[in-house]
Amino acid sequence: MKIIGFSGMPCSGKTLAINFLRNYFPVISMGDVVREKMKEKNVNVDLREYSFNLRKTDKAFVAKLCIPLIKKIDGKVCVIDGIRNFEEVIEFKKENDVFLIAVHASPAKRFERYMKRSRKDDVLSFEAFMKRDRDELSWGLGEVIALSDCIIVNEGSIAELENKIKEIYLKFI
Amino acid sequence: MKIIGFSGMPCSGKTLAINFLRNYFPVISMGDVVREKMKEKNVNVDLREYSFNLRKTDKAFVAKLCIPLIKKIDGKVCVIDGIRNFEEVIEFKKENDVFLIAVHASPAKRFERYMKRSRKDDVLSFEAFMKRDRDELSWGLGEVIALSDCIIVNEGSIAELENKIKEIYLKFI
Repeated sequence: MKIIGFSGMPCSGKTLAINFLRNYFPVISMGDVVREKMKEKNVNVDLREYSFNLRKTDKAFVAKLCIPLIKKIDGKVCVIDGIRNFEEVIEFKKENDVFLIAVHASPAKRFERYMKRSRKDDVLSFEAFMKRDRDELSWGLGEVIALSDCIIVNEGSIAELENKIKEIYLKFI
Repeated sequence: MKIIGFSGMPCSGKTLAINFLRNYFPVISMGDVVREKMKEKNVNVDLREYSFNLRKTDKAFVAKLCIPLIKKIDGKVCVIDGIRNFEEVIEFKKENDVFLIAVHASPAKRFERYMKRSRKDDVLSFEAFMKRDRDELSWGLGEVIALSDCIIVNEGSIAELENKIKEIYLKFI
């Protein structure tokens, strides 16, 4: 299987990029896989916290949960959404051909987007936003971004992002 | 002072990018600062190892060594080469306006460049090259790259890289 593995900081535009590819390839969301696990175990905690705990003893735990889903896919290419550390990449690479894409935008641009989409009465300061970023990065996300096969810079419009994703899509059909 | 702070994985093209800016702005190399410290202390070990040890107890130690050099600069903009962790960025931000640039190329492209510039009898395998990358990243370099204000993708020619750097240079003059 060819896996297009996506990572990106919050509000980088990763979800938009993946939504474009969703028209052409099946998408496995690692977040959904964690949500499914929460439902199965009947736990009711914060998704981020539960994700963190699942990865605590085995950093590739969530990736391992994805493997049977990948095997079920009828096709040659799939998209994985939400890679968080390089141990997950190593797990996916065991039996698949992995192409890593990171979507990047500057902290200022990501914060601007975050402010636009947030309710005014429930919003982080820039400092708290950066603190949350750094927490996220402490899981190993920076390593995944740094070792990506392709970084899509998403500072501009949605149309520009779509054009960049189209170029990638053409490589995989 | 406006600081243009550079980071990048080995063979990303960071040095080429900085060499272009060297014609216009003073450059402080964090590697040179460490080398100077080694000379002063009369130590004769591997630069990477010594750099790592200096940053072990205080991750911003090398950044702190750069502060008096920044203060001596007669001008409004300088380039810092070789940021390795986000604590260094925080240190630089205390009294300066920092714009973080990461130069990125895929592991395959970086390895291709590494092979071209290496002596045939003294060369790492791709696996050893990736292992060295991951060691580098364990210092916190991935966090710096992920939180950069600008990522320059350098998969193409030197001329293409220079054009990208020129755009940045124009923002700072």
